[in-house]
Amino acid sequence: MTQTVDQKASAAAAAADAWLSAFQQALTARDAEAAAALFADESYWRDIVAFTWNITTAEGRTGVADLLRATLDQVDPTGFHVTEEPAEADGVVTAWIAFETTAGRGSGLLRLVGGKAFTLLTTLDELKGHEEPVNGRRPKGVSHGAFRDRVTWAESRSREATELGYTVQPEVLIVGGGQGGIALGARLRQLGVPTLIVERNERPGDSWRKRYKSLALHDPVWYDHLPYLPFPATWPVFSPKDKIGDWLEMYAKVMELNYWGSTTCTSAVREGDGWAVVVHRAGQEVTLRPRQLVLALGASGLPVVPDIPGREKFRGDQHHSSAHPGPDKYKGKRAVVIGSNNSAHDICAALWEAGADVTMVQRSSTHVVRSETLMDLGLGDLYSERAVAAGMTTFKADTIFASLPFRFLPAVQTPVYNAIRERDAEYYGRLEQAGFDLDFGDDESGLFLKYLRRGSGYYIDVGASELVASGDIKLAKGQVTELTEDEVVLGDGTRLPADLVIYATGYGSMNQLAAGIIGQDMADRVGKVWGLGSGTTKDPGPWEGELRNMWKPTAADGLWFHGGNLALSRYYSLYLALQLKARMEGIPTPVYKRAEVHHTE
Amino acid sequence: MTQTVDQKASAAAAAADAWLSAFQQALTARDAEAAAALFADESYWRDIVAFTWNITTAEGRTGVADLLRATLDQVDPTGFHVTEEPAEADGVVTAWIAFETTAGRGSGLLRLVGGKAFTLLTTLDELKGHEEPVNGRRPKGVSHGAFRDRVTWAESRSREATELGYTVQPEVLIVGGGQGGIALGARLRQLGVPTLIVERNERPGDSWRKRYKSLALHDPVWYDHLPYLPFPATWPVFSPKDKIGDWLEMYAKVMELNYWGSTTCTSAVREGDGWAVVVHRAGQEVTLRPRQLVLALGASGLPVVPDIPGREKFRGDQHHSSAHPGPDKYKGKRAVVIGSNNSAHDICAALWEAGADVTMVQRSSTHVVRSETLMDLGLGDLYSERAVAAGMTTFKADTIFASLPFRFLPAVQTPVYNAIRERDAEYYGRLEQAGFDLDFGDDESGLFLKYLRRGSGYYIDVGASELVASGDIKLAKGQVTELTEDEVVLGDGTRLPADLVIYATGYGSMNQLAAGIIGQDMADRVGKVWGLGSGTTKDPGPWEGELRNMWKPTAADGLWFHGGNLALSRYYSLYLALQLKARMEGIPTPVYKRAEVHHTE
Repeated sequence: MTQTVDQKASAAAAAADAWLSAFQQALTARDAEAAAALFADESYWRDIVAFTWNITTAEGRTGVADLLRATLDQVDPTGFHVTEEPAEADGVVTAWIAFETTAGRGSGLLRLVGGKAFTLLTTLDELKGHEEPVNGRRPKGVSHGAFRDRVTWAESRSREATELGYTVQPEVLIVGGGQGGIALGARLRQLGVPTLIVERNERPGDSWRKRYKSLALHDPVWYDHLPYLPFPATWPVFSPKDKIGDWLEMYAKVMELNYWGSTTCTSAVREGDGWAVVVHRAGQEVTLRPRQLVLALGASGLPVVPDIPGREKFRGDQHHSSAHPGPDKYKGKRAVVIGSNNSAHDICAALWEAGADVTMVQRSSTHVVRSETLMDLGLGDLYSERAVAAGMTTFKADTIFASLPFRFLPAVQTPVYNAIRERDAEYYGRLEQAGFDLDFGDDESGLFLKYLRRGSGYYIDVGASELVASGDIKLAKGQVTELTEDEVVLGDGTRLPADLVIYATGYGSMNQLAAGIIGQDMADRVGKVWGLGSGTTKDPGPWEGELRNMWKPTAADGLWFHGGNLALSRYYSLYLALQLKARMEGIPTPVYKRAEVHHTE
Repeated sequence: MTQTVDQKASAAAAAADAWLSAFQQALTARDAEAAAALFADESYWRDIVAFTWNITTAEGRTGVADLLRATLDQVDPTGFHVTEEPAEADGVVTAWIAFETTAGRGSGLLRLVGGKAFTLLTTLDELKGHEEPVNGRRPKGVSHGAFRDRVTWAESRSREATELGYTVQPEVLIVGGGQGGIALGARLRQLGVPTLIVERNERPGDSWRKRYKSLALHDPVWYDHLPYLPFPATWPVFSPKDKIGDWLEMYAKVMELNYWGSTTCTSAVREGDGWAVVVHRAGQEVTLRPRQLVLALGASGLPVVPDIPGREKFRGDQHHSSAHPGPDKYKGKRAVVIGSNNSAHDICAALWEAGADVTMVQRSSTHVVRSETLMDLGLGDLYSERAVAAGMTTFKADTIFASLPFRFLPAVQTPVYNAIRERDAEYYGRLEQAGFDLDFGDDESGLFLKYLRRGSGYYIDVGASELVASGDIKLAKGQVTELTEDEVVLGDGTRLPADLVIYATGYGSMNQLAAGIIGQDMADRVGKVWGLGSGTTKDPGPWEGELRNMWKPTAADGLWFHGGNLALSRYYSLYLALQLKARMEGIPTPVYKRAEVHHTE
């Protein structure tokens, strides 16, 4: 048994070494075709900033050869080697690798099938000469010795806070100080890139605090760590919204971010090789002139309320889910919640818990997964206590996830969701029995692909579905056609008496949100933000293979988009930060295959 | 070579296993003499709460037998085993061990010489049935499901903050919200012990923020971690005072401590089986009724200013080092700093840097060590980037340090300081040349023993000594006998013209500080706090072998002392918290050999 394991490992090591050695040889010889020949018929090379100064996936040997022809001379990749013992399972050899380029040091993950590369991920992890000052390179904190007119840390921080944005312009301006802006700000601080974050809410964390009171993160703690400072071992699995708010606030403080709260951004126009950005800070108009502008506005910045006839007649309370104060004053009232995704479910449950009479209006089918099942089958191998105990680090988990090409991801995810459906068959049966329309995505690939393709259409069940199944939350179906003084009227003529109407009807696109700042012309020029181009519902093609415009160069110089859930914000903030740092330092950053723009929305 | 290492390891493993097996057999047989016979002639068993519900060191076979006779039946120790491969070096076998007792699970470190125990450390790490809710036991954060009248995390925290100290009494009151109180508060929160911290300063961290502006920690980051939430990899080696202040403030927040700032404690009297403690919070008098009272007042709570004739005549500024605002307004002024320890040196250097004319008055010899040398030779094996890279964890480093019995510690430390003296011989020569009186402790054992014995008498050099050596900081020596309108007069008649006099003359004892709260009678009853009883300067005998009254039962029921630098606060807060938790839960805690009281000061 031991021998078999050893033999397998040694065969895996030999295969990985042979492949890397042949790959390196082809790269050194600048022989793109020879390198491409090492890839399988179906194969994917995902590069994050290391070769392409872009985030892009080359498909097949043709794609690989094209990528290499365009980049090899500039990148001069060297030293490909494995960083730990490769492993083999089900005929796939997996190897963690590292290498160097002209500009920096990179790492990645290689999967071989039959000696050929099936997937290759390459990432740029640090820039030579600009390594992060962490661990052995951490700052001293104080200069030992005696220096005339010494400036203390507090004085220096205070001076920076006073000057930045006024007498000293930031290199990078991040508009939006939620988790995305904060994570990126922390990376940029470590890389020595003068950065200012502006946020319309008063304090870091307010974008969580201000949401409906029963909200807790639907993702578990292992998935949610911020860069550099992971949550302590005491942290709850699902962060209550106010607790994650406090964490973000203290994180921004101890990571020394320059953070302007209560600041709204009204316009940003291109000026010279940078931007002129007008913000209002504490009643005062300030024009900022950063070289790089990052929009980290979140996916929930622009509440969408459908234009329903009769809205003005309705006598009760009505508001968008983002403005829902919580259920406390609605005990005994009749609430109609329009929508059936995460917010709709959470709000319905909280209203029921507080003693309201609740009806959910389902307008289209919804993907529902029980939180426990998702944790176990969907995330458990990478992000869980058992993963940690097995030696899985956050960076490794993120890298493994990033190494699965988006084209191939449905093939990985569909079996997971089939297993979920099977395990919870009885549960799904009860929901359908109650009349709830379920789906698992256009191609049955489940939640994460819905998130990547359209960012909506699902509920991670933390309790509301049982209330739907039991009828405690009443279910109505169809489109809302009218509001009267005290009713919600549906397309089929159903009339729902209501004291309260909540529009859990989602948010406008990130592009729309950006247009409010950079203007419609510029927004049209950069095009759609988010989505893979899968041609499924709300994710129009053509296929792009990466999230459109996220964390990488857009069609507009100096304009970047950042965001995603805590995990994506954590992981991609590194690569966006390195791109910004490289530009600040004047390191050449020729972008391979900047994505074409197909949609103005 | 490999074989030799393997053979050594296997011999070490056999020796450790044989010893533990014999030890366990004797314990099971309740044969104290047989167990004691396994110890060497010179031997030490340090127990932290596991066997003795005390912190105590048994010396020699007699001590061991006595400890066991008193505790065995109650403790019922079982399952002694090694937790990792034992190691052998220089004839000493070192083994990490674990075991169980009636009340909990323990661990420790064993050193064997010639098959006999030379040192044994045993610590109680957790109470059975009251394990900390961390990692795999962490709370869920939100209850999934549907519950009428759900209370959110924010509501629950807010209710606790409103009620605790008013309608709900804390089990534990911690007076003093510096690093010690905060670390202990975090432990108690995890153990579910209702705890309130009161602190005279407004915000957590103010005890650091309010000190002289050039202050940075003299201990490095690896030594300074708080429980549960270590500093990030980005943290500077030496925390500037305001930065550590911010960290403590956010730590208290995210660890959910009940912390009353701007609250002074005026009296605490025994009442029933608890305490009646009067505090003033925001101008309002509140009487708290905790069962347990912990004084975590710090060693710097009571500034001592010598009663020098003529003080009232002096026309310039004069203040204690603790009230020194920093050097900014003293450019070109003549400053006389009385004292020659850490604060005196730091303040002298900062005044020189700001352009003052500075004289230091050295009243007695001082132990000086260069920070770099101390980091390398004194701490490097346990607390450094290289230690971390070699797999050293903070808990292991703390445990190794705790495993060195105080009686034996000088024998371990003296060679270190001899090496320091040798490496920096030229440096010490220059200091002596400048007339500075140096010492390395009464028995040449250096800084850490000075800290444990008396808490004073040293300077960790971060730059000032070069100014002393060069004469940029002028040196005067002797006692101050008088102040005139504009001079400091010394015993030998030297007159030092002065615009500013700073008393870097240290602090009153912790016992004195406690007396201000618990009254002089109670303070006399518990006696001296801190010091080992070594019979060296400022550490009067008789020998106690542990820090008097620290982290363990005192002569007064329900009265505890907590504190020390960040490292000691971190480590011992666990064991103090477990003692408090056990009492709350009604677990029997018979104290073996409660220390006698010899000094009322």
